[in-house]
Amino acid sequence: MAAAAAAVHEPEVIRDKAAMRAWSRRRRAEGKAVALVPTMGFLHEGHLSLISAAVAASAGPIAVVVSIYVNPSQFAPTEDLATYPSDFAGDLRKLAATGVVAAVFCPPDLYVRGSADRPSAAGASGGAVSCLEDAGGHAHETWIRVERLEKGLCGSSRPVFFRGVATVVAKLFNIVEPDVAVFGKKDYQQWRVICRMVRDLDFAIQIVGSEVVREADGLAMSSRNVNLSEEDRKKALSISRSLVDARTAALSGSNRSQEIKDQIVRTITEAGGQVDYVEIVGQGKLGACGEDGPPLCNLCRGLVWKGQAN
Amino acid sequence: MAAAAAAVHEPEVIRDKAAMRAWSRRRRAEGKAVALVPTMGFLHEGHLSLISAAVAASAGPIAVVVSIYVNPSQFAPTEDLATYPSDFAGDLRKLAATGVVAAVFCPPDLYVRGSADRPSAAGASGGAVSCLEDAGGHAHETWIRVERLEKGLCGSSRPVFFRGVATVVAKLFNIVEPDVAVFGKKDYQQWRVICRMVRDLDFAIQIVGSEVVREADGLAMSSRNVNLSEEDRKKALSISRSLVDARTAALSGSNRSQEIKDQIVRTITEAGGQVDYVEIVGQGKLGACGEDGPPLCNLCRGLVWKGQAN
Repeated sequence: MAAAAAAVHEPEVIRDKAAMRAWSRRRRAEGKAVALVPTMGFLHEGHLSLISAAVAASAGPIAVVVSIYVNPSQFAPTEDLATYPSDFAGDLRKLAATGVVAAVFCPPDLYVRGSADRPSAAGASGGAVSCLEDAGGHAHETWIRVERLEKGLCGSSRPVFFRGVATVVAKLFNIVEPDVAVFGKKDYQQWRVICRMVRDLDFAIQIVGSEVVREADGLAMSSRNVNLSEEDRKKALSISRSLVDARTAALSGSNRSQEIKDQIVRTITEAGGQVDYVEIVGQGKLGACGEDGPPLCNLCRGLVWKGQAN
Repeated sequence: MAAAAAAVHEPEVIRDKAAMRAWSRRRRAEGKAVALVPTMGFLHEGHLSLISAAVAASAGPIAVVVSIYVNPSQFAPTEDLATYPSDFAGDLRKLAATGVVAAVFCPPDLYVRGSADRPSAAGASGGAVSCLEDAGGHAHETWIRVERLEKGLCGSSRPVFFRGVATVVAKLFNIVEPDVAVFGKKDYQQWRVICRMVRDLDFAIQIVGSEVVREADGLAMSSRNVNLSEEDRKKALSISRSLVDARTAALSGSNRSQEIKDQIVRTITEAGGQVDYVEIVGQGKLGACGEDGPPLCNLCRGLVWKGQAN
């Protein structure tokens, strides 16, 4: 009984920002580290692996918070905000089954200002005020830009994506005030953007990058996979197959990066996929091969293989 | 003896980011609120009034931190970073004489990365890492933009100023982790930018705006006043004089904002000053008269009079 690792533990569901922050501060006052796993919900094994990574990252007692929030600011008007899948009840069941999630933070909206957020207009009297605002409130206008890393790769076709991600993650950091936060390396550029933001803005948060989790047949787990037809799901396997082939070629000594990229495009296109981009880049600055550290032949073990067919 | 308000108290001088954060956390663990007064040094009565405002803002026990840091990122290459005045020993004496400053944070550089800031390259092994970086480090590339408020007024002639201010203030917030931070309303647009950033990014910090402190003859106190010749100092009085006249005109019923602005320009120009801009704006969004709340005639008590002759 003592070793029942799969004990169900119902996490506390928190919707209010101030309540979330107060909860975190209580946990820290109890001597626990707070770990945040930000998600957009519709959870799968990949998300659960982030939770495991959060637990593994801490030597001492830890309180794990999973946030579920579909962040509107990272979607361009042409993207799939309206059809992004959700299943809150199912998510809660999965989180409870982990036995290690202490709280779920699911705010209704992180950008709209309700009356509770609007301080009084005490400023007119000349006293100390907290953020005097006009009656009626304002729209959000503060954005965090990670100016080099947000460009290129996914940033080329998704111009507001990394701005929206960096900004909402900073908001979540300021609300949850975690000691540790975990991000999946499936979204590698996002992970690099977050790491850079944390370093540049001096957030006191350890960022953990967690490895890609794949289905048995190689497909990277993603909430959006539910939108694939059976036929498209088969085509999508060409992505992981082409990346494995590319990796094999590099490990066996090929340093002809253009040939390797062409082969990836060919594999995916022949399977009926449409390629957004294929690049071979260094891990740190995500610069093209040769620009960012040693050239391909010396780096093959450390390369990031990006071949997303959006 | 018990009422010796002017007791000297030597503040602790802290240069290291991690030491600063640890110091703040200890104060909070002792039940104190931490108040931050960010400055660029060369302190005058205006700065000391910010410290008084910090003390006044807190009902309970408080630990006041004054930061002294000339932030390079808010200066354009054409501006006066190289000649910005400094007097660290004098600043420390003044802060000690207040009797209420617990710590002075004066970091050597908040943008350059030393080896201490660079985590190990443990990422290649696939384990949990905190911000894997390439050898050699990178320059800062994360910037916070408050996209509407940073435009216009001082933003027109100082294109990187508010970006640099917002970013360094966020860094100081993440290092010092204050409950309260105080900014002078002399730099009114800056104060509005900080308030908006704090609201939009959900910083758990009360922002206090503190009134302008003037010399007996009306000149707003500023560290840069030391750079004025005796003649220029006399000319500069035309700024406060013209603003007082404009305020008087508005209070006596004038709603002809263009006439009022023209008169301000005339007063300053006739005194030999060069006008950068004169605008009459609403307090919240800093929009031009009529665009941002009720028109001038109904708002005159609440108007911000900006007439900076840089």
